[in-house]
Order: sequence, then C-alpha cells, then structure tokens
Amino acid sequence: MKQAADFYIPTFDDVLRARERIEPYIHRTPVLTSTYFNELTGAELFFKCENFQKAGAFKVRGASNAVFGLGEDQAAKGVATHSSGNHALSLSYAAGRRGIPVSVVMPRTAPEAKKAAVRGYGGEVFECEPSTTAREAMLEELVARSGADFVHPYNDHRVIAGQATCSLELSEDVGELDAIVAPIGGGGMISGTCLAMSNRSPQTEIYAAEPKNADDAYRSFHAGKIIEDDAPQTVADGLKVSLRPRTWHFVSSHVKDVLLATEDEIIDAMYLTWQRMKIVVEPSSSVPLATIIKNRGIFAGKRVGVILTGGNVDLKKLPWNSN
Amino acid sequence: MKQAADFYIPTFDDVLRARERIEPYIHRTPVLTSTYFNELTGAELFFKCENFQKAGAFKVRGASNAVFGLGEDQAAKGVATHSSGNHALSLSYAAGRRGIPVSVVMPRTAPEAKKAAVRGYGGEVFECEPSTTAREAMLEELVARSGADFVHPYNDHRVIAGQATCSLELSEDVGELDAIVAPIGGGGMISGTCLAMSNRSPQTEIYAAEPKNADDAYRSFHAGKIIEDDAPQTVADGLKVSLRPRTWHFVSSHVKDVLLATEDEIIDAMYLTWQRMKIVVEPSSSVPLATIIKNRGIFAGKRVGVILTGGNVDLKKLPWNSN
Repeated sequence: MKQAADFYIPTFDDVLRARERIEPYIHRTPVLTSTYFNELTGAELFFKCENFQKAGAFKVRGASNAVFGLGEDQAAKGVATHSSGNHALSLSYAAGRRGIPVSVVMPRTAPEAKKAAVRGYGGEVFECEPSTTAREAMLEELVARSGADFVHPYNDHRVIAGQATCSLELSEDVGELDAIVAPIGGGGMISGTCLAMSNRSPQTEIYAAEPKNADDAYRSFHAGKIIEDDAPQTVADGLKVSLRPRTWHFVSSHVKDVLLATEDEIIDAMYLTWQRMKIVVEPSSSVPLATIIKNRGIFAGKRVGVILTGGNVDLKKLPWNSN
Repeated sequence: MKQAADFYIPTFDDVLRARERIEPYIHRTPVLTSTYFNELTGAELFFKCENFQKAGAFKVRGASNAVFGLGEDQAAKGVATHSSGNHALSLSYAAGRRGIPVSVVMPRTAPEAKKAAVRGYGGEVFECEPSTTAREAMLEELVARSGADFVHPYNDHRVIAGQATCSLELSEDVGELDAIVAPIGGGGMISGTCLAMSNRSPQTEIYAAEPKNADDAYRSFHAGKIIEDDAPQTVADGLKVSLRPRTWHFVSSHVKDVLLATEDEIIDAMYLTWQRMKIVVEPSSSVPLATIIKNRGIFAGKRVGVILTGGNVDLKKLPWNSN
C-alpha cells in the first residue's frame, strides 16, 4: 500500500551520503550480545548500542546530517527546532561541532536538567507555554527573525536519511538478519531502518515496537492512515509523538507489524537490560526487547537486530524505584 | 624492597597458560573511551570493562583458572570458598561450566539476593554465623568432609595469574600505557596487574586505588608490612578485605603508590560513569576514576588504563538515592 507523496522521499544514495557526512562527528556504536537474553527469548539478538552514541542517542545521526548538509550561507543563520528530548540535545551537539547558532523551543515546564543539558551543548533555549500552539508560534517567530533552518525531529528527509545509517552499520557488522525491531514514536528511526534495509537486505522484516499507552502508530497501521495520540502517558517519554507524512510513508509501506508493550513490560525489560547487560538504556529503548520477550512465536530461532535507541535517563528517578 | 617468599610466586608463563585455559569461558571485554572524562582529567583514559565480564566481574578470570586447572580426580571432589561477593558468583559460574560441585560459605546475614545469585549459577550455599572464626571453621569442615579444593578469593597463585590476563588484554588492545589504576581490596586484581605489566611493559606505573574508609593497603604500603582493617565501612563493598602474603608480595614490590578516595568521591565518580558512559559499574569499580579526578597532577597528559572491575550492584539501592 505504497502511497503517492508530494514531498521528497530520501533514497539509499542519500543514506550513503549521510554516512560519509556525519562519520567524523558520531560514534560507530558497538553491537552487544547477551547469552541471557538469547536463552530468554529463543532468538539470537544483536543489540545496536545507540545509548553509547554522542549526546546519548541515535538522534545525533539525523541532526548531524541536517547540520553538516547546510550550505555556508544557511549555516551562518543557524538551525532551530522544538524538542524537550534527545533531538534538542543532538541538534545542539551537531550545531556546536559546526560552530553555528542553534535555537531550541522548549515548554517552560520542561525539567531544568534538560534545559541545562541543551545549554551545555551550546544551544539557546527559548521557553514557551506548554502547548502545541505556543510552541509552533514561537518557533515560527524565531525562524522568521533569524532565518534559521528548522530541523524537525523526524518529519524531515535529512533526518530520516541520517537515522538510516544506524541499521546500515548494524547490518554490516553482524551480517544477514531475519528481523530488526526498533521503537516507534514519530517514526524517524523506524523510517530510517526501512530505508536502509529495504535497499540493503529486503528480506529482513522490520517490526516497530510501541508502548500500549501511546499506540497511535499501531492504530494508524491498522487503519491505513495517520491517527494521532492525544497526550499519551508512558514511561517511554521519547515515544509520545505521532507519525507525520514522511514517516507514515515508510511505516505504511515497509513495516511488517507494530507490536505493543505495557508499561510494566517496558520497565521489566529495562531493568533486566541494566542488570544483565550492565548498560544504561532509557525506557524508550526497552520497548523492542519487551515486545520480543512477549512474542516468542515471532522471533524464536531467528537472528534479530534490536535498536537500543538511547541512554539519557534521570538516574535519580528510575522507574522501578517509583512504584 | 622485593621480599623473600616461602610460597609459590606466579610467573608470566603462568599468566599465558591461564589465558589459554580460561579463554573459552570468559569474555574478552571491550575497552571504552570517553571524551568527557578525558577533558575532565586531562589524561587519555582507557576503561577496561570487566563489568561486561561473565558473572559480572573480573573475578571469573581467577576462578576459572583455578577450576579448569584442576586434575580430574580433584575436580570430581569440587571446589569451595568463602565469599559473599563476586568471587562466590565467579567460582560458581566456573564450576558450573566444568560441571563440578561448588560449596560457598556465606554469613547467614548476607543479602538473600546474593545467596540466590550463587544458587542461580549452581553453587551450594552454606550459611554460617557472621564472624571470621565461624566462616573459617565451616569452610575447614566442608573441605575435610568433601575433599573440595579451597579457592581463596585472592591469596592464591592461580587466582592472581588469572586476574593478570585482564591487563594483558588491555595492554594488547591499546598499546603502550603510562599508568594503570586498579582498585585494591585483598589485592588480587592489583597483583595480577603488577604480574602482567612488570613482564610486558615494565615502564607502566601501577597505582592502587582504595577507599579512604578502608585504607589498610595505604597504611600497609607506607608501613612496609601488612596492616589489617578492622571491619571498615565503605560503599565499595568489594574492597573491605585486607592484603595477604601473596598479594602483599606484589603490592610491596611493584605498586607505585596507593591513592585514596572518600565515599562522596567514589559515589560521584560512579554516578558520572553511569551518566556519561551509560554503563553500570559497581562502587568498587569507581574508586580508580575518583582518584584520577582528584590527582590531576599525576595523570594529566598520560595514557592511563582504568580497570572497571565489575557491574554487580543492587539497582534498587543506588548510593546516590540513599542520601
């Protein structure tokens, strides 16, 4: 059910160019395996550790591709975005590496630690009222004033091509995979995964893993059109946003299925990952493993890539301590 | 001030044999680097990640060397030890891999989670009253009854040769190092480090990092003889034990200095490691980094190996949440 599109769809060539462009600024993150999780799931799992990525998450791939792809004139005017999460950090990091201005619109209610982290990477924070209208109005005003380039967290072909470099690396490092499971929020990572694998290894099935409490992608997938969530509440705070046309294009045409996990399943998978693999991953990163554990019938006996998307978490407020 | 010894001192050949013997049962753990910590310390740091090791700590190296070095007759009678920490887990893991019995004497007051973990690896737990006398009496009785081989957590030449394989790998993977910093408790890891590096790279200086609250090695080092701690209290629970003759031999002859860190410094270094490197390390592992941060004058401008000894920590009782 591939859709006609009135916007530019990134190609595999864009992915290869993105890889070359961002290579000096990102880590080629390691792939870890775990005897424990292989036994638990019956599958052979390959964990792509984007929690070890620069700025702590895969988002730096797309952000760097956008920032370093700008011409000199546009670059001098800087970049801007709205985000209170990893995209804000990543865009600030990338802009800092290029030495250009970066403006980030964040709700005034966002945690001070997140504002401080963005400033730590050199980003300028603009606080708005916590509503979509206020956020978009402030961003528009900023862009009109400075001429900054708006880099959307996921509904941007440069961002999708950048995120695609992640599964490209995974595939090169571990060889043929039967499936890849990645979290889905706005769909940037999953779109990049579809883009990379549909070209490099079309037989690899792509599964999107989503919190049951924010199941807009699941409902969109089954309805055949974008359905938006209304202020969902989930521990996987990176996955609250909804699909947009550029990501819906990939989700609707390449994703094999959308699998859901409950809050408890996500927290259990996160806890087990910390305990057994000794790595710090954020809740959003644990949704894929949670869905693999509960869908043994799909994955047992298969070689499965798992994208651990990030590791930015408040160590003083861990979800298993708040019960 | 090399001492005459009336016990067998392991040689570099023993280390090479240990490496070959244990290779099928352990991980060759990765070495991580961190731009953040390099900038913070002024040094170039190479973190040897034994938190990713089998059973979650370097101790599996020495335990495996002891277990897989046994002749068939002795092996059939099993192994025994006293430990409520990583050595208990590691010996149980190694014995389980060889399929031989393993008895572990633990104080009845030890956390149930630790007893369960030992049993999970196939170890049989024998509970004793929480005193040195009771522990040694029960171990002696066990050994007399079963003929099991007593594998001391560190005062054992097979264990020291096994631990030495850790810095041997580190040195091979990153090349010439100006210094290595490892935690010191009973001295098994630091002795192995001295053994490996004095043969492989004699110019590399070995620093032992110790909690100020359990500074028996520091006091021993300066007194020129073993001084024992009396029930020290420190968050670095793997480092409460005291030196013994086989480890004192290496500490007294090869260690450049013993550096101390306070409880707050240890917890801060641990927190920063989790936050910045996205890895789970136990408090004992963070003592080296804590001493490097506070001794910039010693380490700035140098290539420094840091042994992250383990990652076995109660995720529900993190030290920064208990303040």
